[in-house]
Amino acid sequence: MAEQKKMVEEITSMEEDFAQWYTDIVKKAELIDYASVKGCMVIKPAGYALWENIQHELDRRFKETGVENVYMPLFIPESLLQKEKDHVEGFAPEVAWVTHGGLEPLQERLCVRPTSETLFCDHYKDAIHSYRDLPKLYNQWCSVVRWEKTTRPFLRSREFLWQEGHTAHATAEDAEARTIQMLNVYADFCEQVLAIPVIKGRKTDKEKFAGAEATYTIEALMHDGKALQSGTSHNFGSGFAQAFGIQYTDKENKLQYVHQTSWGMSTRIIGGIIMVHGDNDGLKLPPRIAPTQVMVIPIQQKKEGVLEKSRELLDLLKAAGLRAKIDETDKSPGFKFADQEMRGIPLRLELGPKDIEAGHCILVRRDTREKTEVPFDQLGEKAAELLETIQKDMLERARVHVAEHTYEAKNYEEFCDTINNKPGFVKAMWCGELACEEKIKADTTATSRCMPFEQEEIAPVCVCCGKPAKKMVYWGKAY
Amino acid sequence: MAEQKKMVEEITSMEEDFAQWYTDIVKKAELIDYASVKGCMVIKPAGYALWENIQHELDRRFKETGVENVYMPLFIPESLLQKEKDHVEGFAPEVAWVTHGGLEPLQERLCVRPTSETLFCDHYKDAIHSYRDLPKLYNQWCSVVRWEKTTRPFLRSREFLWQEGHTAHATAEDAEARTIQMLNVYADFCEQVLAIPVIKGRKTDKEKFAGAEATYTIEALMHDGKALQSGTSHNFGSGFAQAFGIQYTDKENKLQYVHQTSWGMSTRIIGGIIMVHGDNDGLKLPPRIAPTQVMVIPIQQKKEGVLEKSRELLDLLKAAGLRAKIDETDKSPGFKFADQEMRGIPLRLELGPKDIEAGHCILVRRDTREKTEVPFDQLGEKAAELLETIQKDMLERARVHVAEHTYEAKNYEEFCDTINNKPGFVKAMWCGELACEEKIKADTTATSRCMPFEQEEIAPVCVCCGKPAKKMVYWGKAY
Repeated sequence: MAEQKKMVEEITSMEEDFAQWYTDIVKKAELIDYASVKGCMVIKPAGYALWENIQHELDRRFKETGVENVYMPLFIPESLLQKEKDHVEGFAPEVAWVTHGGLEPLQERLCVRPTSETLFCDHYKDAIHSYRDLPKLYNQWCSVVRWEKTTRPFLRSREFLWQEGHTAHATAEDAEARTIQMLNVYADFCEQVLAIPVIKGRKTDKEKFAGAEATYTIEALMHDGKALQSGTSHNFGSGFAQAFGIQYTDKENKLQYVHQTSWGMSTRIIGGIIMVHGDNDGLKLPPRIAPTQVMVIPIQQKKEGVLEKSRELLDLLKAAGLRAKIDETDKSPGFKFADQEMRGIPLRLELGPKDIEAGHCILVRRDTREKTEVPFDQLGEKAAELLETIQKDMLERARVHVAEHTYEAKNYEEFCDTINNKPGFVKAMWCGELACEEKIKADTTATSRCMPFEQEEIAPVCVCCGKPAKKMVYWGKAY
Repeated sequence: MAEQKKMVEEITSMEEDFAQWYTDIVKKAELIDYASVKGCMVIKPAGYALWENIQHELDRRFKETGVENVYMPLFIPESLLQKEKDHVEGFAPEVAWVTHGGLEPLQERLCVRPTSETLFCDHYKDAIHSYRDLPKLYNQWCSVVRWEKTTRPFLRSREFLWQEGHTAHATAEDAEARTIQMLNVYADFCEQVLAIPVIKGRKTDKEKFAGAEATYTIEALMHDGKALQSGTSHNFGSGFAQAFGIQYTDKENKLQYVHQTSWGMSTRIIGGIIMVHGDNDGLKLPPRIAPTQVMVIPIQQKKEGVLEKSRELLDLLKAAGLRAKIDETDKSPGFKFADQEMRGIPLRLELGPKDIEAGHCILVRRDTREKTEVPFDQLGEKAAELLETIQKDMLERARVHVAEHTYEAKNYEEFCDTINNKPGFVKAMWCGELACEEKIKADTTATSRCMPFEQEEIAPVCVCCGKPAKKMVYWGKAY
């Protein structure tokens, strides 16, 4: 028994070693397991159920904007990857190459898709002829491979799951509007469903996607003050269209290039959920994304009537439309509590013989540990209400964390001091020159996270070189 | 206009050339497009929506039996693939090999999963310790790669989408029960949702899965009389467990090997839907799986009130819980009818100025062309009723086709004559010897499809060698 309890408890505290705390949670909450291929992961039921909920929520939002799902091949011929110059330079160093099919060497080697711009372009060049064929609003759910040197579960792995939307439009305005629309879908999803507040903005040229005209991003702040790029939306202009020859005949019968976008969110966001909400007892899942929202834990379950009543309450919760489970294992209540907390289940329901006598059960919030006595006949309603409150409070708490860890710097000394000693975002002005970005990175390891849509004028000059400033930038150390 | 109409009409008739008819439908109903990698396909929105519905229906059925979804890596190290002797012999000749990651050659080459038994076993050997850890009921939705020489859309492609369930059990009985349970899930899904009747049975040793103790199959009959293996469920016994060392401690504290199963259904089944139900006007989708169940087609849509009323009826259909769309393009009604028929949408709703005056619309069945006048206020109810009738009739029609194309043969002359001249299944007795199976295949190209669960004694002796018969077998030429 003591050993079982210990199994659940032994996670490193985040203050002691944040990276180890993260790895412990990922393992102890049974989200993933390591696989025999280095840098790849086995996503276990608890991790995959989280991804299924993310898929479900995002997919619905995509479809509401007219997006259709498709499936493109896993493989990209080398010659196809090479068609857009910037794109191949960005990805070729980190792709996996297939050189043999069965016992025969291939005539041309194939890369395992690191992203599918080239495949969509290859398809669009045949599928688009007239303005009537536009827009094309395609998305796919798939896995992609990038041969990373250092890997961490969810945050950076050689294979990961994601969705990639790829659209083609008649005009530059339509493409830009779609790019921003999808960024907003991501931002809304993160805030409303994952309770993760994000900064929306544009990437600098240095940080933008290989082949894009503009990359927009949502940046989230983790508990340790490091930033996580959580979703990106790219406007390609007509660069890919020109490289691949994707043209359409407009209403005046003139041949035009299409304008394209792409946008993606991946299993990486699960790392964000862990690092924004988790604590030293484990995972803490926002109710709207939690695969299990309420865990029913019978106390003294061998006593007559306890299991029966617990199952009755489970059915009540389910009838109220909540995702609920019961833990009927022969472990102790203490172990079950710790286990439910480790797995981040937002609410637990405790029910023992005395509660049954009193005609109520106890609901315990995972986020605050607050206990509420709830009469049986109010259970469904009260549990739903508490879950909504938890969702709201988790977002609010995360917002406070971002506000408390966002700093300003007017000069370089202040900037370096803040970025090195106060984990978080530093807002500072920038001249727009690559040299300053590179110097900042070399001096501090921080990178420009984005030029936020909500600009402020903190100072008139660049925090690095002192020349006239063009943009306010969020800087940070990032995952 | 004439050209547009022609575009929809020009498909080869199935009597003239069944293979070309199939390819024409796949292209004209916009299910797939060919990709730049030979043997791979682009699954377009209409094809993918069909797969999404299949996923949705199957996934729900799996979960009702306690199955959980997971995700295993795309890559299998060569040494891992080689652990089970029969398995590697079956798959090594047809896998794609990754030899380079980025710019570096790999120390050990990796195959792109053709199926994931080895990965699940590798995980189970670490995840299973005690009888308390059993059963493990995992499934994954993913793509797999098999380097086939000749390929056809959906039926045989180098990459395809599927689900693969992999379970581990304490006893041989539990494994066998799960194998049969999942076969029944597939059979029920095919009949109730896809309106495809299937023969359930066991594969001969020659035809079973590489590494399995027993393979069970559901076999469907296509319109041209050829068989399609539509789903399989394998009992591995403890063969893989012994090769991978997957052991658990039982209640008496003894170390035991687990017993395993796997079961899969793939995008191949979309080929089955096409070839069981389609006709010379195109695809014909069973209502329960059709992404769009009713297409509203306004007639003389520029006349006042027609579009408005059409949209109103569209909303009525949606409110009744039906998947409905409207075709408001500026094409002619004739083109739109042909287009809806090509895409296999089960019902179309025609509405013109005269119908509006009369207070009704016309519902036309895709399967029989039967027209029904429906008063506006009965639309939701009547359309739902008609869809149910279509679903039932399509299954019944497919059942009649199987019955009419299933023959018996008592001796070898009769057998060869039937199998060569009458497309369909031939039921005949078999001695159980590989030699007879091989002779039949060499003489006729037919293979044993399965030893059906419903056995009959057609004759006392093997149809091929005349020795005492052990089993009745369904024989057929297969995709």
